Amino acid sequence: MSKGRIFSGMRPTGKLHIGHLSVIENWVRLQEEYQCFFAPVDWHALTTGYEDTAGIKEDTREMVIDWLSAGLDPEKSTIFVQSHVKEHAELHLLLSMTTPLSWLERCPTYKEQLQQLGAGRDIRTYGFLGYPVLMAADILVYRADTVPVGEDQLPHLELAREIVRRFNHLYDSQVFPEPQPKLAKISMLPGIDKRKMSKSYDNDIAISSNAEELWEKVRLMITDPARVRKTDPGDPEVCVVHTYNKIYNDEEVEERIAQCRTAGIGCINCKRRLADKMIESLNPIWERRAQLENNPGIVEEILTAGADKARKQAAETLRVVREVMNIG
Amino acid sequence: MSKGRIFSGMRPTGKLHIGHLSVIENWVRLQEEYQCFFAPVDWHALTTGYEDTAGIKEDTREMVIDWLSAGLDPEKSTIFVQSHVKEHAELHLLLSMTTPLSWLERCPTYKEQLQQLGAGRDIRTYGFLGYPVLMAADILVYRADTVPVGEDQLPHLELAREIVRRFNHLYDSQVFPEPQPKLAKISMLPGIDKRKMSKSYDNDIAISSNAEELWEKVRLMITDPARVRKTDPGDPEVCVVHTYNKIYNDEEVEERIAQCRTAGIGCINCKRRLADKMIESLNPIWERRAQLENNPGIVEEILTAGADKARKQAAETLRVVREVMNIG
Repeated sequence: MSKGRIFSGMRPTGKLHIGHLSVIENWVRLQEEYQCFFAPVDWHALTTGYEDTAGIKEDTREMVIDWLSAGLDPEKSTIFVQSHVKEHAELHLLLSMTTPLSWLERCPTYKEQLQQLGAGRDIRTYGFLGYPVLMAADILVYRADTVPVGEDQLPHLELAREIVRRFNHLYDSQVFPEPQPKLAKISMLPGIDKRKMSKSYDNDIAISSNAEELWEKVRLMITDPARVRKTDPGDPEVCVVHTYNKIYNDEEVEERIAQCRTAGIGCINCKRRLADKMIESLNPIWERRAQLENNPGIVEEILTAGADKARKQAAETLRVVREVMNIG
Repeated sequence: MSKGRIFSGMRPTGKLHIGHLSVIENWVRLQEEYQCFFAPVDWHALTTGYEDTAGIKEDTREMVIDWLSAGLDPEKSTIFVQSHVKEHAELHLLLSMTTPLSWLERCPTYKEQLQQLGAGRDIRTYGFLGYPVLMAADILVYRADTVPVGEDQLPHLELAREIVRRFNHLYDSQVFPEPQPKLAKISMLPGIDKRKMSKSYDNDIAISSNAEELWEKVRLMITDPARVRKTDPGDPEVCVVHTYNKIYNDEEVEERIAQCRTAGIGCINCKRRLADKMIESLNPIWERRAQLENNPGIVEEILTAGADKARKQAAETLRVVREVMNIG
């Protein structure tokens, strides 16, 4: 039986934070079982960020370094930049012709995102409305059958399946499989201030931080506000350190709970131990980053080779698409 | 001074009728003064015709044969098929990101066309709404400064200029010139039944008809309905033959008016003379068509060479566009 095929993309947002790690670790597992295509989707970044594009290339590069550091393997997966494979744009144009406007206007995420992302920015553009068509093209140009997604992306994937059904019906073909979602259990890591982790809140910990930077962040983590003195007992359930302990220090978590509740450990000490565990866990990632950074040109090489591989697949898909559509 | 640059496209509708000749004759004149890019815009055909694409390739070929027969010269003009130059799709995608949705929704032709073309067809698609963005991309990918258009296309061209101004402003660049319309005096030839000439009314005369077919059509032209017998005087002002005489038989038109008004010529004789004049006028076009048809592969060769030439220009534009947008 042939391997299933996966496409997944991520907007280039620069250096990722450790909240993203569970997504990438999921990809790292998937690359063992599937034929995987992973891409920074830089054209998508334009849907909301067309007014300031100065950082896109550097953001793309840094994000890819994080991916590679976290274990994505260019020998196993095809890693490339969306805009380097022009077939995405051609398929987007062709699919735009068969996609009813109402599907896009009624997409539940559309109005939501207009409100969330639109504040102060003029994103009510033709391209922003067409976001799901471009996402469908990204997936379908590789005829991927599986897409690892979060819950929030399910409506877009359903739309991609509708686009497939309509296309296959219109052109009496089976060119595209209907891509199925693969929901992964993604652990939600809060920011150090307990809010959603986000670079814009400055409550994040970059995957690429060094030991010192990491400690600075952990040191500032919000603990039980009722525990004023070291001798006061604390409630781990309201403490960010505890949430992190469950992920980075699983074997000591019960001990830590007991110590916290009996004031048997001070918060700074508790944080120090968490930081040590996190450093231990992130160390292999940091080592891989250092290797990549010491090897100038290697990221570009990987992305060039990835784009060549991706393009081959995409070109073959477009050949078939043009044939059944009698065009181009 | 460098030559101005023109782009103009036409949807592939198969063999053209003589009503289209004045448009092409205008192009033939323009190719002497401008650097010209002429393309059957087959991707545009999908905006309204995506449900039945079986004929697009043949329609494209036949239309190009008409163009060449009528005097478009591949040595002077770049003649190519839109979908063969993928850069149109990439620029379309990029411009979609900067084009406000409202510009498209409010485009005066949009609602008009939805009504006119939408009857019984489901054309309310994302691609149909984006028609003017694709048209802008067609023009701008060659950085054309001049576009020969009919009055009905002026709103689309104004939109293309707005897209240019916004792009040049956003990316602090002068990548694109604002394309200016070049309105030509296009003679409106009615159909043989006096309605608008159209294949769908079966009142048209194909450029490629032969002498017999042409005579069949001229014979059926509507004349003065009040002139029942040959001995009745007629009124040329209400006669289709008279309208055609003004174009195809200018030197005899006064004589013919006098003869008609005094019943000095019968309608069939009058039509026969018109047909002879039309045949004389169309003969060089027919001869060129016969040459092209006897030379299998020549049209494909011209279109391949044209696409290569066009692609070179388009690629250079995209290089600059990607640079100022920091993408791709």
